[in-house]
Amino acid sequence: MSCPKNKLRIVLIGAGRVATHLSARLASSFQLVQVYSRTMPSAESIATLYGAEAINDVRLICPDADVYLYALSDDALPAIIQQVAVRNTKGLHVHTAGSVGIDVFGDAVPRAGVLYPMQTFSKEKAIDWAEVPVFIEAKQPSDLATLQEIASALTPKVYEASSAQRQTLHLAAVFCCNFTNHLYAVAHRLLSEQGLPFEAMLPLIRETVQKVETLSPIDAQTGPAVREDQSILQRQHASLPDGSWEQQLYDLISQHIILYKKQS
Amino acid sequence: MSCPKNKLRIVLIGAGRVATHLSARLASSFQLVQVYSRTMPSAESIATLYGAEAINDVRLICPDADVYLYALSDDALPAIIQQVAVRNTKGLHVHTAGSVGIDVFGDAVPRAGVLYPMQTFSKEKAIDWAEVPVFIEAKQPSDLATLQEIASALTPKVYEASSAQRQTLHLAAVFCCNFTNHLYAVAHRLLSEQGLPFEAMLPLIRETVQKVETLSPIDAQTGPAVREDQSILQRQHASLPDGSWEQQLYDLISQHIILYKKQS
Repeated sequence: MSCPKNKLRIVLIGAGRVATHLSARLASSFQLVQVYSRTMPSAESIATLYGAEAINDVRLICPDADVYLYALSDDALPAIIQQVAVRNTKGLHVHTAGSVGIDVFGDAVPRAGVLYPMQTFSKEKAIDWAEVPVFIEAKQPSDLATLQEIASALTPKVYEASSAQRQTLHLAAVFCCNFTNHLYAVAHRLLSEQGLPFEAMLPLIRETVQKVETLSPIDAQTGPAVREDQSILQRQHASLPDGSWEQQLYDLISQHIILYKKQS
Repeated sequence: MSCPKNKLRIVLIGAGRVATHLSARLASSFQLVQVYSRTMPSAESIATLYGAEAINDVRLICPDADVYLYALSDDALPAIIQQVAVRNTKGLHVHTAGSVGIDVFGDAVPRAGVLYPMQTFSKEKAIDWAEVPVFIEAKQPSDLATLQEIASALTPKVYEASSAQRQTLHLAAVFCCNFTNHLYAVAHRLLSEQGLPFEAMLPLIRETVQKVETLSPIDAQTGPAVREDQSILQRQHASLPDGSWEQQLYDLISQHIILYKKQS
């Protein structure tokens, strides 16, 4: 099997949400030669859009691409790297996971890199790439230029970050995005039980975010916990089912807010 | 002592953040006759702006105002109501607290009401009142018109809500605003420890909010917990100091995300 030889030739490994959003952006600047997924329809759903070959067998991965871009769950990453990397030890192997170190590639992969787009990717919603920071890391400094080239096709916000820094960025992102969204889900449930619409929260949610555009979150903190208003804290605690997860969350976060205030 | 007799005459009780933001908006439509605070400089800081009298002694509260508007901490509210309400049992007494029932006024106050602006008020930042929902409640239906008049001077978004509904709204607001801001504070601390700027999170924070403008938070949930990606969950757990508050928060919220997913 041979790959076409003009633009940087990329094999995309994975066909989930991150792979979908990456391919939409990369296909116009680079040649997407193959898209691999365990399930053929997933591979095809991306491949057919950009004239790439869809495959669901790692043994068919083309051995002479320039870049192998892994957009998979962290759990799946080590096993698939082992199978793919042996097929081309000259190509650049790049994963996109925030929390996985560059060392996941091991010694058998001399040219390893990471390209981590820090954003929450939904199937249902387009991404404003101009606002997405991308953090890159390369095992060999000479590969940074290629990573920079790929990342620059995604966004102007490209930064170098070590594996340790990237893991902290990803952890902070989990707090800022996944966990805050869960608190919205808790509010949604509380409101639904009283027949109230979640939409009533949107002005408050927008204002909360606008505040941290200019203030440090510690300075922006408001509410009963930071005021140590014990009567509200007790009343709100009591209004939640005893021993419920929501009550545990309420107590833990309230106490933590008071602790942070005392430490600041 | 007598009060001027033209526009609706309001006595403002309290001079904190909520009182400051309310007075700035109400003073152009109504007559602010007095501002009470335990500390004279606080009372003066508002009163002098609008030609009102600053007082720090409840015995000086004018007995013939139309409306007594309480903008105090929940803890302080019951005691001050007891002192003020005896001075004018014909006026309308209105508190602004989300979590306090209208029954805080007791039987001695025939004309009681609530006007709850659901927003996070900072000293440092102006409020876009057009976006603030205000929830009103009156003991006597005949007082709803006055509450509607006052609330409409603040915002077009005026809704009636019972004490039970308002308490749920306030609890949901604590989750959506105060608690999400605390998670930003946790992220800020984690990043600072690695020399990384909190600003890197802002695109992600904005996108997280934009998603719940159109998707239900349950449908918008992303991240390692909802994917049940155990290797990231374990790695991120282990990266936080053992037994720390941050680690407890990480575990509790992650488990709760998985639970909500299974229930949805």
